[in-house]
Amino acid sequence: MPLDMHADSHRPASPATRSRAFRELLSSPDLTFLMEAHNALSARIVEEAGFPAIWASGLSVATALGLRDANEASWTQVLDVVEFMADATRVPILIDGDTGYGNFNNVRRLVRKLGTIGVAAVCLEDKLFPKMNSFVGERQPLADVAEFCGRIAAGCDARLDDNFSIVARVEALIAGHGMDEALRRAEAYHRAGADAILIHSKRAEPDEILGFAQRWGNRAPVVIVPTKYYRTPAAAYRGAGISTVIWANHNMRASISAMSRLCRRVRDDEAIAGVEDEIATLDQVFAMLDYDELAQAEGVYLPAT
Amino acid sequence: MPLDMHADSHRPASPATRSRAFRELLSSPDLTFLMEAHNALSARIVEEAGFPAIWASGLSVATALGLRDANEASWTQVLDVVEFMADATRVPILIDGDTGYGNFNNVRRLVRKLGTIGVAAVCLEDKLFPKMNSFVGERQPLADVAEFCGRIAAGCDARLDDNFSIVARVEALIAGHGMDEALRRAEAYHRAGADAILIHSKRAEPDEILGFAQRWGNRAPVVIVPTKYYRTPAAAYRGAGISTVIWANHNMRASISAMSRLCRRVRDDEAIAGVEDEIATLDQVFAMLDYDELAQAEGVYLPAT
Amino acid sequence: MPLDMHADSHRPASPATRSRAFRELLSSPDLTFLMEAHNALSARIVEEAGFPAIWASGLSVATALGLRDANEASWTQVLDVVEFMADATRVPILIDGDTGYGNFNNVRRLVRKLGTIGVAAVCLEDKLFPKMNSFVGERQPLADVAEFCGRIAAGCDARLDDNFSIVARVEALIAGHGMDEALRRAEAYHRAGADAILIHSKRAEPDEILGFAQRWGNRAPVVIVPTKYYRTPAAAYRGAGISTVIWANHNMRASISAMSRLCRRVRDDEAIAGVEDEIATLDQVFAMLDYDELAQAEGVYLPAT
Amino acid sequence: MPLDMHADSHRPASPATRSRAFRELLSSPDLTFLMEAHNALSARIVEEAGFPAIWASGLSVATALGLRDANEASWTQVLDVVEFMADATRVPILIDGDTGYGNFNNVRRLVRKLGTIGVAAVCLEDKLFPKMNSFVGERQPLADVAEFCGRIAAGCDARLDDNFSIVARVEALIAGHGMDEALRRAEAYHRAGADAILIHSKRAEPDEILGFAQRWGNRAPVVIVPTKYYRTPAAAYRGAGISTVIWANHNMRASISAMSRLCRRVRDDEAIAGVEDEIATLDQVFAMLDYDELAQAEGVYLPAT
Repeated sequence: MPLDMHADSHRPASPATRSRAFRELLSSPDLTFLMEAHNALSARIVEEAGFPAIWASGLSVATALGLRDANEASWTQVLDVVEFMADATRVPILIDGDTGYGNFNNVRRLVRKLGTIGVAAVCLEDKLFPKMNSFVGERQPLADVAEFCGRIAAGCDARLDDNFSIVARVEALIAGHGMDEALRRAEAYHRAGADAILIHSKRAEPDEILGFAQRWGNRAPVVIVPTKYYRTPAAAYRGAGISTVIWANHNMRASISAMSRLCRRVRDDEAIAGVEDEIATLDQVFAMLDYDELAQAEGVYLPAT
Repeated sequence: MPLDMHADSHRPASPATRSRAFRELLSSPDLTFLMEAHNALSARIVEEAGFPAIWASGLSVATALGLRDANEASWTQVLDVVEFMADATRVPILIDGDTGYGNFNNVRRLVRKLGTIGVAAVCLEDKLFPKMNSFVGERQPLADVAEFCGRIAAGCDARLDDNFSIVARVEALIAGHGMDEALRRAEAYHRAGADAILIHSKRAEPDEILGFAQRWGNRAPVVIVPTKYYRTPAAAYRGAGISTVIWANHNMRASISAMSRLCRRVRDDEAIAGVEDEIATLDQVFAMLDYDELAQAEGVYLPAT
Repeated sequence: MPLDMHADSHRPASPATRSRAFRELLSSPDLTFLMEAHNALSARIVEEAGFPAIWASGLSVATALGLRDANEASWTQVLDVVEFMADATRVPILIDGDTGYGNFNNVRRLVRKLGTIGVAAVCLEDKLFPKMNSFVGERQPLADVAEFCGRIAAGCDARLDDNFSIVARVEALIAGHGMDEALRRAEAYHRAGADAILIHSKRAEPDEILGFAQRWGNRAPVVIVPTKYYRTPAAAYRGAGISTVIWANHNMRASISAMSRLCRRVRDDEAIAGVEDEIATLDQVFAMLDYDELAQAEGVYLPAT
Repeated sequence: MPLDMHADSHRPASPATRSRAFRELLSSPDLTFLMEAHNALSARIVEEAGFPAIWASGLSVATALGLRDANEASWTQVLDVVEFMADATRVPILIDGDTGYGNFNNVRRLVRKLGTIGVAAVCLEDKLFPKMNSFVGERQPLADVAEFCGRIAAGCDARLDDNFSIVARVEALIAGHGMDEALRRAEAYHRAGADAILIHSKRAEPDEILGFAQRWGNRAPVVIVPTKYYRTPAAAYRGAGISTVIWANHNMRASISAMSRLCRRVRDDEAIAGVEDEIATLDQVFAMLDYDELAQAEGVYLPAT
């Protein structure tokens, strides 16, 4: 009676498998690319395109919810979205955990819940709750180093699986505090237990992050987010010994363009014939979510009498 | 101290305003087009493109959640999504309420909650819980007419606002029961209180729905979903006196294509430079969600000291 | 076909009705008593006992969720609970909104959502997110006055219904800043738009709050929470011109005692015969939630064929 | 820096530990007693009283939510409650899964999600969605045996942990179909994979369930719910070889009585002095939820500087 072969393909990978896979990506000498997703559908598309892991972007999840990247969604609303993402995929997910949504105690609760729903790793940034998107507005206040180290340590202590990774995001460059402060913070966060350092920059050139990488010397894996310095070729990151590149919000932005274009076209045409060939077919949707499996299972569990 | 001008643009339209607006669209002699949305972001895009109302598609919402259109999501999970959609827009939303998620009592609870979150109307189809997408698999059993009329009547009695509309979806043609049965059911549903009839067909030609419209004679507004017979020009619907056309899943399908294409390209390029010009910019995202308003409000509510 | 008489008793009172009712209680010269509830069941019991309004206690809701009163639950998890409370009752609910769960922008979102789900009023306290229960631990830092006034003003501007009330809770006495600071803050909060002042004290005698009331002179209604100074008779509050007394956590505490006692007894007896007469009967449960209405409605909506 | 000793006491037991523990209780020759809980607080009280496992009652959870035991709450709303219960305790939880909330596919989703949140076992009853409480109204239709066996088999195939238990609840006696039908169904459900049989009766005497147990002969563990035949001593169950007794709704009923009594008393007294000694103290609440741990952790993670 079991549908093992099929059922297996619908079983989410175990949390342990995913955490281990992500830890290996982080520590591998190869450059890893993560692509953003903001719901289960985009997460599945990222996985099917062959990316080894998914970035659950705070900005993108908020945008999909119609909210601003300023902690307008509650942390459990974000986790509800990410739980659907985890259920729909098997590769590891690195969640953008903002500031941890409060103090060390909120981080503890966050990390435990993430482990339960099968998220492999969390990125915590050294700002205060509620945060604002890093590319918006003026310089934002940074967290006190000791207090943020407490959040990292609390997250480490709370993880149920040692392979669950905590990535500490350093905002010192964006906040205008300079390279020395960035390095000082990276060092402190690493000592507090962070498994990797995400160094963020909003310059159009990669000089800041390459400079950081050089001085940091790979004491822990370095993660970067080339949203603003997008013209840099991957070779530069390989040369600098970067561990992981995050394409941070591109699926969300691609979907906006595509849907806006389609809406205007269909509005003007008063018809969909003109777009039918440009968009996924219903059969592709049904195949992606394996409607056939359901029909097959029905035959097993509801035998015709 | 109030930010009235700005704040107003962020206030969701009142439920009463939206219900009235949708009722007027239904009863207007003009042909109305609704476009599908599956989350707050796509709902906002539909609104900005100028559609007068939004179709919250069950198939599309499920797909975005990584689930099959077979009541895999609970009804409250669907409503959580639609609540974000309502909060992000001002035009009315017609929600695809499947079968009402159970019996007459489940419909009563559904209708009350929809009214609270600002949804203007619900479409109920005459099948049984759990349902399967109409375009998948074999003929599905239809609900008993009297029982389904009870669901419609219960929904009517439960609405807090008389302008909240209930659209009864007739699946008789798709289920192979023929035109007479479709008309018999439409008549019964209308008598039970339905404000409009959605007549569904999976033929590639519009003959079924045009034939229905002719024999129905506009006893109540007719809503159609030309997913399969997509080549038909709007003039045919106008000629037949159709009230409303629903483009049922096209934003979801457009987003799949766009994200799949982007993911493959970025994977191959190991870079985003090649796609940067094709996708919405971050500044467009920030403008759409009015990050400026937040900065302005901060100046009002957090005066520099 | 409508079940009007019965259906009405199941319709939640409109948000507008409830907000107006609470505003009238606040401004009435009579002393009003609010009783705590922490879920829909206790809210219903408070209503049936004749209390004119319900206090949705942050401590009690957290305790019922198995969490500490330290913002361990997200704000939307709290609202999920309070939405069930609102759906199950008709009298107004004053929600303990902690600090507003962040800054002025979080307060705006909170106030809008509360209005939607039918909560009549929110109490905001002048501390920082995440907060700790006032009776636990050392003196906690207070919010900056101007920043907290911004939260109040933002809440006022965000309310969709002018009768939605915002109660500002002054923690200055508990935090050890003395009476002058308490009065200064109360004055500032009132000017920022607060509809009432909740003055909190953890002394076993009511001297602090009576002293406050005397010096405050009813510039705005005063709300008190006599958890620690519980021996004071109501006459003292009437004499001092207090508007509202909140019995803040007593249903939760009563339920703990009752359930602990029952569990130990049944464990020891290996039987329930000994407790059967001391607890509500199933018929009382069915009557409270009007199972009869459902049976009656079934007869209406599912006619025997 | 780790707070291991303390932190451990806050870690939920692993799902695997709990499933195994429940399976052992089921198969043990000793009579096991389960006590009902309806939220995290009552679950914690059940655990602290020494019960080896918790019954998450559908009726009680619905009542606490202010809803009727007729699938008015969605299945995910029920799971939200039970997730808090699991997070707050370490002993296994048997959830009342009603009918599985739909067909075999809904059962598959339910079982996977239960495994994730740490629930040890589910009870499925052989009725149709939406169900009505067994003690209310007339005879309710039973599920087709083959269809219900499909639900059981699907649940078995979907479990990620072989120790997750599925208890099949036989409603044949309550529905008036007699002993032979009850035995026939029990046998079919057992063959389909059910780990235990819950035989339900609404008679005031235990004759039906004792008769069933005798004829059943322990082919699989038998679970009973002596709500109506509450006068029977445990010895009778031991003599009949019953595996497990569920005290199904007594905490909920005890809390109703206690809160109703308290509310009336406080309303009449206009004071709480008269009840202060009868209810749990705030210090007991703080001790139960280990507020001290939080203060201690704060010292660790937020070192005074």
